[in-house]
Amino acid sequence: MNFILLVLLCSVLGLFFSVYQGRSIMKEDEGDEKVRSIAIKIRKGANAYLKRQYKGVTIFFVIMFVIFLIMSIFGYVSIFVPFSFVIGGFLSGLSGFIGMKVATQANSRTTTAAKKSLNGALKISFKSGSVIGIVVVSLGLLYIALGFLFLDWYYRDLSEAERILQVTTNILTFGIGASSMALFARVGGGIFTKAADVGADLVGKVEVGIPEDDPRNPAVIADNVGDNVGDVAGMGADLYESYVGSLISSSALAVAAGLSTKGAVVPLLVAALGVVASIFSTFFVKAKEDSSQKNLLKALRRGVYISSVIVAVGSYFIVREILGSENIGVYFSILSGLFAGILIGFFTEYYTSDSYKPTRNLASMSETGPATIIIGGLSLGMASTAIPVVIVAVSVLISFNLSGGANDFNLGLYGIAISAVGMLSTLGITLATDAYGPIADNAGGIAEMSEQDPEVRRRTDALDSLGNTTAATGKGFAIGSAALTALAFIAAYKDSIENIVKSGTSNFEFNLSILNPQVLIGLFIGGMVTFLFSSKTMDAVGRAASKIVVEVRRQFKEIPGLMEGKGEPDYESCIDICTKSAQRELITIAIISVATPVIVGLILGPNGVAGLLAGATVTGFAMAIMMSNSGGAWDNAKKYIESGVLGGKGSECHKAAVVGDTVGDPFKDTTGPSINILIKLMSMVSIVFGALILALGVL
Amino acid sequence: MNFILLVLLCSVLGLFFSVYQGRSIMKEDEGDEKVRSIAIKIRKGANAYLKRQYKGVTIFFVIMFVIFLIMSIFGYVSIFVPFSFVIGGFLSGLSGFIGMKVATQANSRTTTAAKKSLNGALKISFKSGSVIGIVVVSLGLLYIALGFLFLDWYYRDLSEAERILQVTTNILTFGIGASSMALFARVGGGIFTKAADVGADLVGKVEVGIPEDDPRNPAVIADNVGDNVGDVAGMGADLYESYVGSLISSSALAVAAGLSTKGAVVPLLVAALGVVASIFSTFFVKAKEDSSQKNLLKALRRGVYISSVIVAVGSYFIVREILGSENIGVYFSILSGLFAGILIGFFTEYYTSDSYKPTRNLASMSETGPATIIIGGLSLGMASTAIPVVIVAVSVLISFNLSGGANDFNLGLYGIAISAVGMLSTLGITLATDAYGPIADNAGGIAEMSEQDPEVRRRTDALDSLGNTTAATGKGFAIGSAALTALAFIAAYKDSIENIVKSGTSNFEFNLSILNPQVLIGLFIGGMVTFLFSSKTMDAVGRAASKIVVEVRRQFKEIPGLMEGKGEPDYESCIDICTKSAQRELITIAIISVATPVIVGLILGPNGVAGLLAGATVTGFAMAIMMSNSGGAWDNAKKYIESGVLGGKGSECHKAAVVGDTVGDPFKDTTGPSINILIKLMSMVSIVFGALILALGVL
Repeated sequence: MNFILLVLLCSVLGLFFSVYQGRSIMKEDEGDEKVRSIAIKIRKGANAYLKRQYKGVTIFFVIMFVIFLIMSIFGYVSIFVPFSFVIGGFLSGLSGFIGMKVATQANSRTTTAAKKSLNGALKISFKSGSVIGIVVVSLGLLYIALGFLFLDWYYRDLSEAERILQVTTNILTFGIGASSMALFARVGGGIFTKAADVGADLVGKVEVGIPEDDPRNPAVIADNVGDNVGDVAGMGADLYESYVGSLISSSALAVAAGLSTKGAVVPLLVAALGVVASIFSTFFVKAKEDSSQKNLLKALRRGVYISSVIVAVGSYFIVREILGSENIGVYFSILSGLFAGILIGFFTEYYTSDSYKPTRNLASMSETGPATIIIGGLSLGMASTAIPVVIVAVSVLISFNLSGGANDFNLGLYGIAISAVGMLSTLGITLATDAYGPIADNAGGIAEMSEQDPEVRRRTDALDSLGNTTAATGKGFAIGSAALTALAFIAAYKDSIENIVKSGTSNFEFNLSILNPQVLIGLFIGGMVTFLFSSKTMDAVGRAASKIVVEVRRQFKEIPGLMEGKGEPDYESCIDICTKSAQRELITIAIISVATPVIVGLILGPNGVAGLLAGATVTGFAMAIMMSNSGGAWDNAKKYIESGVLGGKGSECHKAAVVGDTVGDPFKDTTGPSINILIKLMSMVSIVFGALILALGVL
Repeated sequence: MNFILLVLLCSVLGLFFSVYQGRSIMKEDEGDEKVRSIAIKIRKGANAYLKRQYKGVTIFFVIMFVIFLIMSIFGYVSIFVPFSFVIGGFLSGLSGFIGMKVATQANSRTTTAAKKSLNGALKISFKSGSVIGIVVVSLGLLYIALGFLFLDWYYRDLSEAERILQVTTNILTFGIGASSMALFARVGGGIFTKAADVGADLVGKVEVGIPEDDPRNPAVIADNVGDNVGDVAGMGADLYESYVGSLISSSALAVAAGLSTKGAVVPLLVAALGVVASIFSTFFVKAKEDSSQKNLLKALRRGVYISSVIVAVGSYFIVREILGSENIGVYFSILSGLFAGILIGFFTEYYTSDSYKPTRNLASMSETGPATIIIGGLSLGMASTAIPVVIVAVSVLISFNLSGGANDFNLGLYGIAISAVGMLSTLGITLATDAYGPIADNAGGIAEMSEQDPEVRRRTDALDSLGNTTAATGKGFAIGSAALTALAFIAAYKDSIENIVKSGTSNFEFNLSILNPQVLIGLFIGGMVTFLFSSKTMDAVGRAASKIVVEVRRQFKEIPGLMEGKGEPDYESCIDICTKSAQRELITIAIISVATPVIVGLILGPNGVAGLLAGATVTGFAMAIMMSNSGGAWDNAKKYIESGVLGGKGSECHKAAVVGDTVGDPFKDTTGPSINILIKLMSMVSIVFGALILALGVL
């Protein structure tokens, strides 16, 4: 338990660090009247959106809470489930909320700092990113540590093995709340941001021919709000869930692996080490004035590398100290995950950055029109799945075998789970480099709208385009770790069903052979659900965007003098439309995600559910990478053309590239990064509804 | 053995019918000088392409033959493998070749018949389609029947159970030859046809503004050649392999299911019945003069429905007679497959025909430009995967359980395999309605190029647009049956490895649990290979098309008077470029398909291979449906706009829809229909290299 107190300490340290950094950001100059008034509008819009989202979420949470309460009364779930469901949702939402709050204060301050220097702007935006990153991981550790302490006390009369089992499985169910919240935040935010973006571009850039972020465009504030609610709040909620999910699933698997409390504590300690390492390494991120793009990227990378090295060295001692040198293989599992994450990040950059061949080739495909650049982008995205899959495959093989899977199957599964912990251990700093992107993006928007000197915009643009690359890397990271965590979840699912069977009247036995028709059908449905989910989320963006198009057109027609810059556009109405549509579209998507595993379970039994989860993971992993990378490459191909090649801005090539970028918008910012939430939410639903399915299912 | 003679008889009957029908087509009037000269050009181009393709194929086959010969000398495969490899490849190629020959004679005759009446044109084009359909199935049955007779004699000294095992496993290995040939024909043809189509359109329609099929376009003959080598020869080779593969894999599974020779014979008899039923039902396909689109479709459907009813009734007696009433469940497996095929066809039509909401909605998305219609089409295709997956899932459940899978697992697998036979039993007539499409398409092209009366073109257009719908239905069918057959292949793979283990020194044991890392990684790689394959095939089309663009541009610039219709374009050079690029691009694709299962097998062992096949089937099924349906819907959305809605031809909406259609071209005619070949080729490679992998593999 002393170790848990240490974890608690690190999380509190992280929170103090965040508060301190947050305060220092608030002390920065926010800028002139104009900047402040725009920033306030964005802040208000983001608040309005989140308020409405939380309203929708509350209804969903109340319904589910009642369902879980009834289930717990009938003994299908433990009494803690309804509460940890709510707590998980709350904390996941809180992570996103804090991120949004920080980001909407930092954007204007970044703009103002960019008036003076590039380095100053980088400092503020990165500092804000690091607050967001550290808050997410600290809140995650805080929840786990407190949960551990409380449940360990509550179950004090059980044997150690029994106690740790109860502790981990009960904490794990937090995940259903956290992933539900993540779904609402990430998908809802994703729909919001891309509907605003696509809608603003379609009318603004294409129809009336005004530049991006022009204050005359009624959807422009909604577009900037979207960055905050989608890319910051959504991502925060999402990664909070990923982080805690990976930690606690590997703790849960430690029990079956016979490593008991010690094995359960290792992932937490590695994560705590990661928090400290992340905080430490933020101090190394600084750039010289007027650094090149390359040097800026190097500055950001430095932070990630330093913290990786710290974790790589430190976790060796953690594993040897706690699990003993006979289990030193577990250390190599952690290492393989850490390394795999860095590699995936690197190859994501290779496929999506215009410094490399793939995106440059893609740009040149615009010469034969939009059709060929679309085909090329899809093809690029599909090809880019190969290396990450191989990296994950090798990492699974290594972590399974080196942790001792050949002799003890459960030990191998623990190894796979803890490799995901290795990958996510440096999340604090990775997330910092990722979250800084939308802040820089917003800063650029504010600079444009408040009509700053072009030099200011040039500086924020440099930061923004860097943000595109770090965002792509961050997504690759999130998806890679999700794949590993999803595997851990399937194993955890099996454990949890077997524990129910052991203590109950069911005589169910797993037959997870891929030739078992239940598993097979589950696999098929899992693959299909990924496609269906992708379809629905893309549709939602399309529908919401077309509403924005209609509204923006209306305003240009009805508000006198708008085009000449004399009339004042009605920004709120666009924000309102985005907000409403995002929430409305979420209903079907949430139902698909929650109902599928329950229905499959009732008809095909737990074997079918395991197949479902595996099928969704396998197809979803490839699909998510494809979508993120296609989208990233289209965006950067467009930026590459804008930099002056192939005729530059306004050329036929550029127009074709804009079509590609628009297709890529929902790919990379709505659908792609949401798929991992689908997979994990389905896993959590499966685990929580396990007993019910066993009792009521056909098989 | 009497039953086998009966099967032989039916196949010979089918061949006679084809020859008779083929002769009657040749007797029809080919038309005027102009029509004939164009037809000759198309014929020459198609011959030139096939000649070159066979050259490439020959090299590949010689290399593989030598490899198999060496493997058989070392005892890794039976001595029959190298030969049945060659025979399988030959027959698959022959099916495609005959189809192409028939189609290139029928096209001009259809044009000429269309001068007189719609019904006459339908009669000729459908008759040709039916020749192609019946030839494919008859050649399939012929090969199986002769193989059975020969091997049964060869192994006459073995016990019945041993003998039938040897017979079926040896015949099964034909499939590696057939699927290799299918890969070359379908993918090569697909690249050819779409490169020509896209290239012709990009310069012709978009740049110089001449209509489709305009004789001034240098790529126009290549485009028409493409229909024959891709949609006819490629499809013929592909479906020959699917058909025989499904028959013989269920025969092979009969052995493990304890049904012995009787169980092995049932699928063949059902297929033989299907051939007779298909021949019989072709006589019911006729339309009244100037029928509406709907009535034409009805006429074609009538044939499919009549033969389905015959098979549904007849196979009841076959099962009861041969397997006895205790195994009558097998009949319901056949029925479920037959019914599933019809349902998949129906829903494919729902998603891709402009008579229904999805395609009409898609057309209206063109109002906000190309980006939204692209997003909409991708989303439509993804959503359209849901119902076919559920249909296949239900069909698998029914056929597994009703055939007795709950008591005897192997019996259930046999049930799944034979449900694929049920689905493909009416292939003769389904293929007839499918193959008629490209003939009508060509007839339209010839009408345009030979400057016939607009009424002629109107008639061929009516037939052509009908062909779009039947082609989509046919693809749905091919993919659905491929999924079921692929499952049978995985089971057959397991059986074959276990037989090797039984008779050899290896002590390998299967652990096909999805939690086994080998299986899991196999699943991931299987999913990824589908994405990679799709990427490579789309890329190949893009690269080949851009070469055509350059060449067509060159000709318009360098040949004096071409645009005014005075100069003669150099059609051959375009055909030559398409031919060469298609073959060159095939090399990587063939290597991916053949090498992946071998490499996975060597590193991950047979468990990994089974996972690979399952992962590829699950992801590939969804991907293939998505691609075919997205492509079909874009094509028909464009046609729908051309019919006069949303501004009609030449409007901004139409331009956006053309972009969608161009993206859809490689989707629906190259990549989508090739994925099932990838899956089956990988299965066959796995089976044939099984012993080698067991001997040399790491695990």
